[in-house]
Amino acid sequence: MSIDYKKYVAVTEDFPIKGISFKDISPLLASSEAMNSVIDEMVELIRPYKPDYIIGAESRGFIFGVPVAMKLGCGFVMARKPGKLPGKVVRAEYGLEYGKDAMEIPVAAVEKGKSVVLVDDLLATGGTFAAIEKMLLELGMKVPLAVTFIELSDLEGWKSFQADYKSIIKYPH
Amino acid sequence: MSIDYKKYVAVTEDFPIKGISFKDISPLLASSEAMNSVIDEMVELIRPYKPDYIIGAESRGFIFGVPVAMKLGCGFVMARKPGKLPGKVVRAEYGLEYGKDAMEIPVAAVEKGKSVVLVDDLLATGGTFAAIEKMLLELGMKVPLAVTFIELSDLEGWKSFQADYKSIIKYPH
Repeated sequence: MSIDYKKYVAVTEDFPIKGISFKDISPLLASSEAMNSVIDEMVELIRPYKPDYIIGAESRGFIFGVPVAMKLGCGFVMARKPGKLPGKVVRAEYGLEYGKDAMEIPVAAVEKGKSVVLVDDLLATGGTFAAIEKMLLELGMKVPLAVTFIELSDLEGWKSFQADYKSIIKYPH
Repeated sequence: MSIDYKKYVAVTEDFPIKGISFKDISPLLASSEAMNSVIDEMVELIRPYKPDYIIGAESRGFIFGVPVAMKLGCGFVMARKPGKLPGKVVRAEYGLEYGKDAMEIPVAAVEKGKSVVLVDDLLATGGTFAAIEKMLLELGMKVPLAVTFIELSDLEGWKSFQADYKSIIKYPH
């Protein structure tokens, strides 16, 4: 890579709780040059998988997932916190790196046999991806790949789901 | 416009509470063609104002604000729910169309004299924009313009803030 992306990540220890080394992407977002470069790299990682959709989880998954889908020319599906989406939804529940939560996607976004790539800012334990992947596979969709900007490599979160996994930069934890 | 964007908005009555006619942008996000067209229109509305930054509020503000900033070649600042951003933040409190809430932005994003354009999916009463604008103006920043995809025109939310206001499509409420 030509840009040192770690210069665009602010690391804060013990946030939001003790023991978590928080990776803040605010500096990346402040630079359109660095952000465009990250999105281009993600697009090239995903393109060979030819997905029908990108799914991103609220809210930082939207930051990377929407521009990636727009550049790939495929649709974007919002995975949202419970109660945010109207109409019929399907729900995935999971344990977070810190706490518990659930995500919902619209039933209208579920098409059997279609291929979906998961995109997020960061992979920690992989709980969110694993729960969304399980839900999508049970509904008959294909989930060939998950991509994040940051990988917390010591946590080996990719072991928690079946899809291939690729990241742009790695931190130990 | 060449695309009928209203075909890409699903309207649900009485969601999330009775009396609210919810505008769901899921169909827009499912179409990269329609989404790219909306972003291009927003970029052309904003370009003459030559902003240094785009600000978008969590989480649907990220959906439009990030691609707009990337195409304009300017930085993006996340306005997040309290407790989500590490380090020093400044806070804006406001009343929502339904309920009360607050938004925080990083102190590092505050630069006196710099120009910021507000971007979101929808303008209702304008409470969020008004609170963020007030905070930014008090910190010495310029806020020349606010842009949303959807305007709920009967609510006249633009009356609640000083910046110019532009939208892509209008619904009465």
